[in-house]
Amino acid sequence: MRTPWDHRFAQRTQKMGSSAIRELLKFTEQADVISFAGGMPAPDVFPTEEFREACNVVLKDFGAQALQYGTTEGYRPLRELITRHSARYGIIVTPDNVLITSGSQQALDLLGKILINPGDRILVESPTYLGALQAWSAYGAEYVTVPMDENGMVTDALEEALRSGPKFIYVLPNFQNPTGMTLSFDRRQKLIELADRYGVPIVEDDPYGQLRYEGEHLPSVVMLDGQYRDEGGASYQGNVIYLSTFSKILSPGIRLAWVVAPPEVIRKLVQAKQGADLHTSSFSQMVANEVSKGGFIDRHVKLIRQVYGERRDVMLAAMDGYFPPGVDWTHPDGGLFLWATLPENMNSAEVLKIALEQKVAFVPGTPFYPTGGGHNTMRINFSNASPEKIQQGISRLGRVLYEKFGQPINY
Amino acid sequence: MRTPWDHRFAQRTQKMGSSAIRELLKFTEQADVISFAGGMPAPDVFPTEEFREACNVVLKDFGAQALQYGTTEGYRPLRELITRHSARYGIIVTPDNVLITSGSQQALDLLGKILINPGDRILVESPTYLGALQAWSAYGAEYVTVPMDENGMVTDALEEALRSGPKFIYVLPNFQNPTGMTLSFDRRQKLIELADRYGVPIVEDDPYGQLRYEGEHLPSVVMLDGQYRDEGGASYQGNVIYLSTFSKILSPGIRLAWVVAPPEVIRKLVQAKQGADLHTSSFSQMVANEVSKGGFIDRHVKLIRQVYGERRDVMLAAMDGYFPPGVDWTHPDGGLFLWATLPENMNSAEVLKIALEQKVAFVPGTPFYPTGGGHNTMRINFSNASPEKIQQGISRLGRVLYEKFGQPINY
Repeated sequence: MRTPWDHRFAQRTQKMGSSAIRELLKFTEQADVISFAGGMPAPDVFPTEEFREACNVVLKDFGAQALQYGTTEGYRPLRELITRHSARYGIIVTPDNVLITSGSQQALDLLGKILINPGDRILVESPTYLGALQAWSAYGAEYVTVPMDENGMVTDALEEALRSGPKFIYVLPNFQNPTGMTLSFDRRQKLIELADRYGVPIVEDDPYGQLRYEGEHLPSVVMLDGQYRDEGGASYQGNVIYLSTFSKILSPGIRLAWVVAPPEVIRKLVQAKQGADLHTSSFSQMVANEVSKGGFIDRHVKLIRQVYGERRDVMLAAMDGYFPPGVDWTHPDGGLFLWATLPENMNSAEVLKIALEQKVAFVPGTPFYPTGGGHNTMRINFSNASPEKIQQGISRLGRVLYEKFGQPINY
Repeated sequence: MRTPWDHRFAQRTQKMGSSAIRELLKFTEQADVISFAGGMPAPDVFPTEEFREACNVVLKDFGAQALQYGTTEGYRPLRELITRHSARYGIIVTPDNVLITSGSQQALDLLGKILINPGDRILVESPTYLGALQAWSAYGAEYVTVPMDENGMVTDALEEALRSGPKFIYVLPNFQNPTGMTLSFDRRQKLIELADRYGVPIVEDDPYGQLRYEGEHLPSVVMLDGQYRDEGGASYQGNVIYLSTFSKILSPGIRLAWVVAPPEVIRKLVQAKQGADLHTSSFSQMVANEVSKGGFIDRHVKLIRQVYGERRDVMLAAMDGYFPPGVDWTHPDGGLFLWATLPENMNSAEVLKIALEQKVAFVPGTPFYPTGGGHNTMRINFSNASPEKIQQGISRLGRVLYEKFGQPINY
């Protein structure tokens, strides 16, 4: 009896769907398309030579360990490196607070698995990171949203949202994906206070924190929470689960990230990770640890800041020159993305159709809004394309926008 | 308000628990313990030099691709290599039938995610692979079991179990973990017939298929199913989802495995994998592809067969010499494990306590039985320890068993 698979799939798969962005990325793989759609680092800044040297060292000296099964928690020296790295940003934790994951996407998935019962509400920024929605919807999450403005999550709207009893608050405080916005210092403190008052934990997602091109570094939410609690050097026991990653400072291709959380949360995540993939590649962990030794990450981040900062500036200048009046966009202090808003009567998904014909791509904003909205918004990446391609692509996109505004321009 | 985390964890975490085996493995990390508890390959046979050369080639020639984000489906040349590899074992599929996963454990997790609604019954062998139970219990799976004998799953008991309406059948036909048993050819055909008649799909888990030390290779269930359907060279559209892995033929540390399934199942798995970890390490995939080129796997598997075959023989001979009468054990034709059965009135968990004092470890059988049983059984690994350690460890274990039998022996 040949049975169709369709009716065999679990109910939760109805909410899974494919990421609009990843489907779009396939479209933009043609060589002549200039894509601002993905969130990819510039391959120019990958430390391939350092990786090559590290692979040689690891396989010559520790080959048997690198190719063998490892512990679910992660390679101990790498977890120790992460505690030292974190301490330099004021995040005082012990290796018991650290779990290595197969990219931050896995951390989001495991958090969904250990925290979300079907029907639980998650409090998110609107717009927010699509990958989190994708991970959590599979566990039956519902969403309650707080709007964003130029200072990040509008904490004045937070208390009302907290009254609906969310399971946790999800926040991307630095150069948020998708908007590029940064949560102000005052709002960080307000967020911690309110979360504490309502007894709701915070998941702080910080993939870009080190990629700041102007302004002063702001303390992370987990650091402020730890300080506020004054744990006195023991393992962190607070209210915040903090995520960061090697994807934007070394390489996304190796799929390596980490969670900082209270030990009892780490223990539960370890149980979930055992069932999910046993452990993250021993080899990747040992190579990343070898590459990172001797302060390499700090030196390398300086290079990334310089390259991406220039690209951001080139893009902002090009948008000033090529975009029609009536279009607004953010001026992010760091990260990979900026966020453009078209007039209310325009639809960015329609703009994309014409843009693809003109061989330029971006991501329409709607999928980032879990409870609707954003039809006239677009996420634009500035890290991946070269400055020349950025100028060319923004010029193409400007032409498309002028055409949609009813004023075709020849240049 | 400092809220304890305990009551925040999702209901499904109550069924998750930590793997008894992985907890035990921590215990056995002391250098003087001879451990037959894990399922680890022998580090002696890791192709570290070939990995080192492959890393150099990949990072020199394709560094920008290896360190960048990749597609969720997996690196296309590796998927093509897997179709060629499969074809040599009669499994005729196209790259549309193949998904790369972060180890087979992730394949089990993703299958749970796309197939299991809470309360769904999964038909499994009893005993069966613990990692599958761990992955699926988190999705609310219940289990209906079919016993094992020296020819694998007892297919005469299958029809009654199928009448309970299971979501799918999970089978490890070759050198099963934990028993080392192999499903006979006749039973493979019977399994396919019955699954087809009842319209229930089969998940075939085959991590050890190539590691046969004696006897003739038996065709895989997915191959027999494809042949039976006579698809004529197009993509496989049948009733079986087939899992295999690089863990036992190259390295478990790189976390690299694959699923073969009908394209509509692969598409759904891809959606689930997007939310779970975006994709498997581009770098690991490209390095494994480079290592595997030019028939390396076939040459390497010959070496593994020789080394593990010898260890199996040493262990069987040692057990003949050192184990008391009344203990039975399997004689597996391949794989990593054998399975010992003590007299009914003995408890293997109690034996383990004394064994650990005597610095030798194995895994008690109970956790492998999803619906109870197996108190007097034990899983013993023969791939990891050297022949000398195997003799020494089995001698220690024999002494413990004699002591439990009330006949302490001095030798």
